Amino acid sequence: MEKPDSASLPRKAVCLLSGGLDSATALYVAVRQGYEVTALTVFYGQSHVREIQSAKALAARLGLEHHTVNFALPWGGSSLIDKKMPIPQGRDEAAMSRDIPSTYVPARNSIFLAFAASLAEARGAEAIFIGANAIDYSGYPDCRPEFLNAFCEAIRRGTKAGVNGKNIRIEAPLVKLSKKAIVRLGESLQVPFEITWSCYVGGDIPCGECDSCILRKKGFEEAGIPDPLSHYAISSHR
Amino acid sequence: MEKPDSASLPRKAVCLLSGGLDSATALYVAVRQGYEVTALTVFYGQSHVREIQSAKALAARLGLEHHTVNFALPWGGSSLIDKKMPIPQGRDEAAMSRDIPSTYVPARNSIFLAFAASLAEARGAEAIFIGANAIDYSGYPDCRPEFLNAFCEAIRRGTKAGVNGKNIRIEAPLVKLSKKAIVRLGESLQVPFEITWSCYVGGDIPCGECDSCILRKKGFEEAGIPDPLSHYAISSHR
Repeated sequence: MEKPDSASLPRKAVCLLSGGLDSATALYVAVRQGYEVTALTVFYGQSHVREIQSAKALAARLGLEHHTVNFALPWGGSSLIDKKMPIPQGRDEAAMSRDIPSTYVPARNSIFLAFAASLAEARGAEAIFIGANAIDYSGYPDCRPEFLNAFCEAIRRGTKAGVNGKNIRIEAPLVKLSKKAIVRLGESLQVPFEITWSCYVGGDIPCGECDSCILRKKGFEEAGIPDPLSHYAISSHR
Repeated sequence: MEKPDSASLPRKAVCLLSGGLDSATALYVAVRQGYEVTALTVFYGQSHVREIQSAKALAARLGLEHHTVNFALPWGGSSLIDKKMPIPQGRDEAAMSRDIPSTYVPARNSIFLAFAASLAEARGAEAIFIGANAIDYSGYPDCRPEFLNAFCEAIRRGTKAGVNGKNIRIEAPLVKLSKKAIVRLGESLQVPFEITWSCYVGGDIPCGECDSCILRKKGFEEAGIPDPLSHYAISSHR
């Protein structure tokens, strides 16, 4: 989370890309900042592949090198990977900021960042971009600045790059932005919102009722920008 | 790396188990300390599966729950996963303590510990055991206490368990032991050395010349204990 010296701005970065609104915007921030970006999508056994398709389409749109790591987490522990656990629907904002929901995947961003650090080191990249957001989010602890700073320190200590003085920074350009601000930033960067995917449920159109759909809808509404995936606003209320 | 209060000693632990001498000994330490242990083996696309077989056999011997996570690291960056890169042979100890070798896998222990944190959180475990060793080792930065401490802090900040005050500790009981001391500890705990596997190359018998074989051989010799896998001492010199 340290700022680079502008005279020595690194040229290569890795960007974690789930295919959602936030990671797509973080990707466009990295590209706009002039980094040569390698995109990384981690598939951890989610019950749908819809967002992976979006991630591939986003990376292809920009002509980026894109890697996917695939595995299953056999211990479950989250409604995103265990079909027997229901995905919460219709939670209000108070509940979202109070409780860590069942969609929390144990240590997910630690896993994501560890893979990103590996790729960054292999490519000689000096920054990892992540779309983590600590304001309009679902209460996940691994989206908070204090976690990202601590993980950055771990990478510095535990990589060949880090001990050789070429630390890999973690850049979380959205971490203190509201969803409204993220939508406006994304629009200014010409993020193709129509090929992003935020819904936890999957399917052909967003469910409109999971935390992720609710937060996305609020962001676009408050920003005064139409969401090209806005069919859910109709479908969920009819 | 903090010590538990003995009055509240946690009952569950996760142990990272590669199948080698060190992780097997760490596993037996955890079991001896009274933990209910879940073993975790991470297969990251090594060019051989010999050590995975050892990990399974070790967990089965103790009747433990055992999980394996499988993935490939498509970016390579290590002679353990890229068959085009030779595994160093015949390095002396000075070289091992001076250089980080090509067998270093970028951010490997970060990846291992992130998965272990996920499993630990899903199981309500309060400790992760890892056989990392910073004395007679191959110069890997992610085996050092300062890395392990930093990673522990990241887990504390970035897990539901951590933010709820149930931090997951990282226990590295071998971190300051020589290989000689590890062999003696393993013997005292009745670790079945004959079903461990340390060689980086794979095959039916250890190569005897990779860093891992050289360090293992040195450890057993200095401990004055015969290595049941000692055929390599013969095979490598004839």
